[in-house]
Amino acid sequence: MITGKNIIGNSLSAKGSKSYKTFNPIKNEENPQEFWEASSEEIDRAVELASSAFEEYRNASGKDKAEFLRAITKEISALGDDLVQMYCMESGLPQGRAEGERGRTINQLLAFADLVEEGSWVEASIDTAIPDRTPLPKSDIRKMNIPLGPVVVFGSSNFPFAFSTAGGDTASALAAGCPVIVKAHPMHSGTSEMVASAIIKAANKAGMPEGVFSNLNSSGIEVGQLLVSHPKIKAVGFTGSIKGGRALFDLAAKREEPIPVFAEMGSINPVVILPSALKEKSDEWATQYAGSINLGVGQFCTNPGLILGIESNELSDFTQKLGSQLTSLDQGSMLHPNIHSSYQKGSDQISDQDEVLVVAENDGDSKPNFADQKLVSVKGSSFLKNKNLHREIFGPFSMIVQCKDESELLDIIKNLEGQLTGTVLGSDKEVKDYSSIIDALQNRVGRIIFNGVPTGVEVCPSMMHGGPYPASSDSRYTAVGTHAIARWVRPFAYQDWPNESLPPELQDGNPLGIERLVNGKASRK
Amino acid sequence: MITGKNIIGNSLSAKGSKSYKTFNPIKNEENPQEFWEASSEEIDRAVELASSAFEEYRNASGKDKAEFLRAITKEISALGDDLVQMYCMESGLPQGRAEGERGRTINQLLAFADLVEEGSWVEASIDTAIPDRTPLPKSDIRKMNIPLGPVVVFGSSNFPFAFSTAGGDTASALAAGCPVIVKAHPMHSGTSEMVASAIIKAANKAGMPEGVFSNLNSSGIEVGQLLVSHPKIKAVGFTGSIKGGRALFDLAAKREEPIPVFAEMGSINPVVILPSALKEKSDEWATQYAGSINLGVGQFCTNPGLILGIESNELSDFTQKLGSQLTSLDQGSMLHPNIHSSYQKGSDQISDQDEVLVVAENDGDSKPNFADQKLVSVKGSSFLKNKNLHREIFGPFSMIVQCKDESELLDIIKNLEGQLTGTVLGSDKEVKDYSSIIDALQNRVGRIIFNGVPTGVEVCPSMMHGGPYPASSDSRYTAVGTHAIARWVRPFAYQDWPNESLPPELQDGNPLGIERLVNGKASRK
Repeated sequence: MITGKNIIGNSLSAKGSKSYKTFNPIKNEENPQEFWEASSEEIDRAVELASSAFEEYRNASGKDKAEFLRAITKEISALGDDLVQMYCMESGLPQGRAEGERGRTINQLLAFADLVEEGSWVEASIDTAIPDRTPLPKSDIRKMNIPLGPVVVFGSSNFPFAFSTAGGDTASALAAGCPVIVKAHPMHSGTSEMVASAIIKAANKAGMPEGVFSNLNSSGIEVGQLLVSHPKIKAVGFTGSIKGGRALFDLAAKREEPIPVFAEMGSINPVVILPSALKEKSDEWATQYAGSINLGVGQFCTNPGLILGIESNELSDFTQKLGSQLTSLDQGSMLHPNIHSSYQKGSDQISDQDEVLVVAENDGDSKPNFADQKLVSVKGSSFLKNKNLHREIFGPFSMIVQCKDESELLDIIKNLEGQLTGTVLGSDKEVKDYSSIIDALQNRVGRIIFNGVPTGVEVCPSMMHGGPYPASSDSRYTAVGTHAIARWVRPFAYQDWPNESLPPELQDGNPLGIERLVNGKASRK
Repeated sequence: MITGKNIIGNSLSAKGSKSYKTFNPIKNEENPQEFWEASSEEIDRAVELASSAFEEYRNASGKDKAEFLRAITKEISALGDDLVQMYCMESGLPQGRAEGERGRTINQLLAFADLVEEGSWVEASIDTAIPDRTPLPKSDIRKMNIPLGPVVVFGSSNFPFAFSTAGGDTASALAAGCPVIVKAHPMHSGTSEMVASAIIKAANKAGMPEGVFSNLNSSGIEVGQLLVSHPKIKAVGFTGSIKGGRALFDLAAKREEPIPVFAEMGSINPVVILPSALKEKSDEWATQYAGSINLGVGQFCTNPGLILGIESNELSDFTQKLGSQLTSLDQGSMLHPNIHSSYQKGSDQISDQDEVLVVAENDGDSKPNFADQKLVSVKGSSFLKNKNLHREIFGPFSMIVQCKDESELLDIIKNLEGQLTGTVLGSDKEVKDYSSIIDALQNRVGRIIFNGVPTGVEVCPSMMHGGPYPASSDSRYTAVGTHAIARWVRPFAYQDWPNESLPPELQDGNPLGIERLVNGKASRK
């Protein structure tokens, strides 16, 4: 079913000399298939194909792109259980998760298909001419978003479907009119090859130019570096560690022509638990947060890794409850032995520090690659002083910070790094009473949640998944939701252009019937 | 009237040890006032004030910000002729230009006042909850744009009003809710001080927090470097050279927290003149282009520095006509002796090359700092080979490239660096006949113009002033027009937030009556 080769346009290719294998963390053994790393020649070929595909694909209509995206969903579905089994074999994640994530991935593709078929996403804006204006006549100016060019997408470790080969970055870039080259994640290259073959089938059925999509294998950093440095690549999507994302950002910034890197990186997702929540809903939140911390074996970027409260008996009670709830949940396999050992090392480093108290942890007597849940607690003053306590521990780990008072809580929030999310648990009245805390939290995050958990990122137009650095490399863009398409486009203006040669989005008659800004007023006319 | 001091919040300050003077290029002598460069302590003070002002200013209502922006226009107008005289004394530009640019600056401020008072610019998007959705309930998610934080604006040399102290960058950043620190351009620091004092007066009258605006002097690069490196600065606006813009971009990218730099840099603004234009409108275009090349003594970023045509007798005739028209126009003073000598040096370097033919130039027998217009001509093959011919000569200079055929013209366009604008002169039919040329041009520019000149950038919602690197550091944003506000904001999402604690833009009743996306549909309800 899989070949281990790179998929470059319509061809399979294995010209490199290095190979690697993926790993089954449940069986604790390598999977059999060998994957061939892309050579520099293969990288060049993929980029050249993408670049020439762009000349045609950038002018594809919304309808044609929608057809392509929908065809991808059909080909992914057609892979059936084989794909689910490959996913599980390469990630250790359970079948239910694989099926759920496949559904999410398909829904994302369909959402972008609907978006570009409808067409208003281009943000068309028209200012008509005023030939008799004095002292100077006014020209006719019309603007819309156009695609940037070939995009490189780095598959993530923790979402083999939804943030990898045909995931949100790829779906939004293809929707925008950008060809995509995926650098498959080395932990699930077989899953990537299967999904990539589905995309290629769909591209051919939908009549898309060769090179609109390619999938390259790599177990190290060289392939990614060559891709990001290639002059014909115009933007990059990445989901992963701060170290990895920052390295790509730096590389892209140093190019002769710098290009944007949309890296969605680490986050500890602070949760502020206010007195009323501790008094009235302590049990409920302990149960919900235990589940949220352990969801996906804690391998979500919105995992709540930091819970901030003000010292009280109620906070101590909550801490104990959360600890026992968390450690009573089933343990799960992490994605890879390397991720498991990083988790163990990171969580040990935190709890080894003198000022950190371990509230609860599993006994470590688990299967290979299975993670022990852990909850620790620390005083606000210690947390403020020790920046090592601020970093993300990727796994089912969380830390409760016991703040002396509201002012210390405020200080802590002001000193946090940028975060994807911030959560407030409390009453409507407390949202007003603690407005300075909430203002400060808003300044550090991309999304703020009231009385909920940060895990579970809804795919909808209003979603913001991104935040101040280092949560993401560019807080001005979301990686989830239909607005993620904005990452791959630039506005382009036509001045006094002949109407019949304008793209339909900007023509006088509004043949597509899209929402436009006409002389400053929203209109579908 | 002016003091030469830095304006830091409400205080005048001159704690530095270095000073400099501006220059009157018409009189060819230094102006009397001494300006005190900001010290590192003064820079810190300005940033700290901006940062604490942000805590309040970011929550200012659209109405309050509009009042502030309108108050600025009143205070600028109140400076009357004194301001115009200062402008002329520091730039050598004529009074008419000063008055026109002041009008443009005021109109920009008023346009942003209207924009934020109306309020729809925040791109509010609401997805309401579906509590009974299966398998999981859907949360209520609401998103809008919020300001990034304190912004540094570098005054430009060539627009002492419209792209300097109270220019487009400042107006859009203040409108977005970001405090602004201006680094005054050393060539017109007196103009900057006067305008800055108007902004401070307006801030106080409108009840804005101290630190919402500061104006710092500097004749070197250190002040700018310290500002861009300061951790509390969150974005940068710049208009100037590629070298200067890239240096700031690199500095900002290297920060622990990288920040966006919106640098509007060089451009040669290619013009493609097609056969019908040469046959039917040769005289008209020669006149219009002579005026456009010489407009503002060629010191506009949209100056047409490159005219591309296919070899023919008609192109030769046009070349001669344009040359004689251009050199028959009045010469003007450039902004500064340094700019004048750069122009002379750059234009000499081009015409000294063997393959370059000088079509027409003034005789050089002009007043000090006055620029000689020059038109040169070169073969397409030479232009393709010699990248030195691709760079911008800032001044009343242009180059005609005689291409062998359509294919060479296409090659040249594909090999151009990114540009602010591209222009096509021809017939409606030619726009279709030369579609591959126009497609290629679109890929290199931010705005494409039909049968016009690139100079004269309309301030309107549909304007795009920016383009692929190095025309600007970020092709995804415009520096002119109301959409320039998008540079200073990030989207922010509220999940299940209590309605009465949401900003009015996102509240259920839509109290501001703004355009919003509600469950994916545009609505003012």
